[in-house]
Amino acid sequence: MRYVTGAKCVKCGREYEHLTPNTTVCACGGILDICYDYAALRRDVTPKSLAESRDFSMWRYRPFLPVEADSPAPPLRVGWSPLYRADRLAHALGLRTLYIKDDGQNPTASLKDRASALAVVKAREAGAEAIACSSTGNAASSLAGNAAAAGLRTYIFVPARAPKGKVAQLMIFGAAVVSVDGTYEDTFELSKAAIERWGWYNRNAAINPYLSEGKKTVALEIAEQLNWQMPDYVALSVGDGCTIAGVWKGFCDLHAAGFIEKLPRLIAVQAEGCCPLNRALQTGTPWAPMAENTLADSIAVGVPRNPDKALNAVRASQGLAVNVSDGEILAAMRLLGRTQGVFGEPAGVTGAAGVKKALELGLLSPDASVVSIVTGNGLKDVAHGIEAAGEPMRAAPSMEALLDAFAACGVSP
Amino acid sequence: MRYVTGAKCVKCGREYEHLTPNTTVCACGGILDICYDYAALRRDVTPKSLAESRDFSMWRYRPFLPVEADSPAPPLRVGWSPLYRADRLAHALGLRTLYIKDDGQNPTASLKDRASALAVVKAREAGAEAIACSSTGNAASSLAGNAAAAGLRTYIFVPARAPKGKVAQLMIFGAAVVSVDGTYEDTFELSKAAIERWGWYNRNAAINPYLSEGKKTVALEIAEQLNWQMPDYVALSVGDGCTIAGVWKGFCDLHAAGFIEKLPRLIAVQAEGCCPLNRALQTGTPWAPMAENTLADSIAVGVPRNPDKALNAVRASQGLAVNVSDGEILAAMRLLGRTQGVFGEPAGVTGAAGVKKALELGLLSPDASVVSIVTGNGLKDVAHGIEAAGEPMRAAPSMEALLDAFAACGVSP
Repeated sequence: MRYVTGAKCVKCGREYEHLTPNTTVCACGGILDICYDYAALRRDVTPKSLAESRDFSMWRYRPFLPVEADSPAPPLRVGWSPLYRADRLAHALGLRTLYIKDDGQNPTASLKDRASALAVVKAREAGAEAIACSSTGNAASSLAGNAAAAGLRTYIFVPARAPKGKVAQLMIFGAAVVSVDGTYEDTFELSKAAIERWGWYNRNAAINPYLSEGKKTVALEIAEQLNWQMPDYVALSVGDGCTIAGVWKGFCDLHAAGFIEKLPRLIAVQAEGCCPLNRALQTGTPWAPMAENTLADSIAVGVPRNPDKALNAVRASQGLAVNVSDGEILAAMRLLGRTQGVFGEPAGVTGAAGVKKALELGLLSPDASVVSIVTGNGLKDVAHGIEAAGEPMRAAPSMEALLDAFAACGVSP
Repeated sequence: MRYVTGAKCVKCGREYEHLTPNTTVCACGGILDICYDYAALRRDVTPKSLAESRDFSMWRYRPFLPVEADSPAPPLRVGWSPLYRADRLAHALGLRTLYIKDDGQNPTASLKDRASALAVVKAREAGAEAIACSSTGNAASSLAGNAAAAGLRTYIFVPARAPKGKVAQLMIFGAAVVSVDGTYEDTFELSKAAIERWGWYNRNAAINPYLSEGKKTVALEIAEQLNWQMPDYVALSVGDGCTIAGVWKGFCDLHAAGFIEKLPRLIAVQAEGCCPLNRALQTGTPWAPMAENTLADSIAVGVPRNPDKALNAVRASQGLAVNVSDGEILAAMRLLGRTQGVFGEPAGVTGAAGVKKALELGLLSPDASVVSIVTGNGLKDVAHGIEAAGEPMRAAPSMEALLDAFAACGVSP
């Protein structure tokens, strides 16, 4: 915590000097932002010193992270995911410069590993032997995997409707999984009571201020991988708002520490059927809950838990708010796969779908440079991969039948 | 191809000086091994020169690969997967030193990406615009993904029984997928006829001598990640034999070029229900076809296509042949997940299952040091993840119900 100076509430502005690993929200209920001594960071850390690091994981940015100097990094290799120059996709979209940051290339196959790895460190600093959360998605599986590798127990509460595949991933990682016969709200409340009763470390991104510090490492990597030359825009999908808030925090930290001269504008992409934050941005009114009508389950969040940080990030960056249909999300899965060999889950490709939409709507200039973050791997959700991919050609085992099949499908080999 | 001197048939020993990207098998039908000028490699490449490379992918070993100096590496980041010190798993097994090489951390989530990336380079060198193979598994999806990223078309022939999820992954990557109404043999023959007719580049690991050179990079990485101090054993699952042959080739190349002093012994692990190669090793008789009775689909190969190289590798290394049951494979999935946070597909964890079995049988000393390769990600086969993982606890949304559920399942939080 050498460079950490404290925390500040994003709602009421109250500052906190003394942080513990268990610090959560402000007295007013607002979420905290971790503050750093940027002058000292600027003095001690430089692009050159970073370039000498042989640690190709999120922990190469340790001075920018709220962890004790002697806290060991957790075992799984999280971060330093590839940033691909995506010329073929750019060409298909009519955009001059596009990069894909594939965060599906993480140990449990999503960006959430960055937050969970940080949670594991803070849990150890707190002396906890167990971590808990309630979730059915990537946060839960990343917590279970990263904690297992570090020898920490996990307790994960899922609503009974949770998809079997995701529950299986949790159980493979040895989590104690409680399937709660009730709604998600019931599940959350039971987990909260259990966390208080047994003193488990609490991994809930929207109340734990450290987790978005983990997520911000994706922004630090994008900047370093682009040799500190910022793109005009960074696009990503938005659910409860924690990830886009973390990304913005990363760029702001780099700017304050003198690593980058320009801040990129954010493109916040939500699903048409569930876009409470984008609706607030587009209409200039306070956000209000919405139904959760989208197949992109990871961002199907009708009541976002981090609205303040997320709305502030998009506004402060002079960003764009773009909504896409489920059909456009499925089309983006095919487009990323076909042009770049990247298979993203629906919420994972929603950022790219938004880039396409923003170009079509004239919100984005074809001359802009854009980084689109893929937040999760398509293997997480094979059912929608099948829906997006369509059916193969069929043929009897003869050359004649093959020629007929090619002709019928318009394939000219 | 600076250090490539030619190729040698593993069956009749005939040597070939002039190779083309389309070189396949020997006139006798035997599979070729690529040969290098090891004295020159020893002179020009050193552990120190490699340590200075900033290319953390399989292409850091370009001098050891049969590609032209000016051939660009394909876009996806393949290789340099993490090698984890697996103390918790070692403790559970009663083994002193164990490492897990997690090759499920590759772009399309399997070790096969190494071979497919090399195929893409050779296809480009051949001037081909399309690559083809017949497969239902990881070879096909890795080919489709790596080729798509490089702008090459792919034609993939699958038998009609191929799992829908794997077909979807192929189609997301834009492959032209032909579902053949027939057996795997029918499918293979149709693909062969089509490849001849249209001149597509042929990605079939057992006839294309370059592909196992791609696979050998996993051995090069293990050696460098262990600072060139070899373990006593390297364990992995075996299907058609190409992967274990590639791994052995990698260690032999390093040994010949003076990078390592000792060659590790191989532990070849097959499923009890489909172990034609291990049966030959154990009985000292020629291999014979077997039925394909195992849930580990990636190694359910009753007629292995690369028996010569594989059998030679295990024998030359003074290796072990160990068979495991499907139950032991599922148990290994849970064990790797719980102790190390690594989720492997059934064939992916079969190597680790074999290490456990070899210890139980007394074939392996508890004092040995072992590297176990996880060849594919568990998200590839969620159905068996569910089978391995078991059911979660169930509880109504009350503390009382939770306490009852914990008591019933023997959980003491």
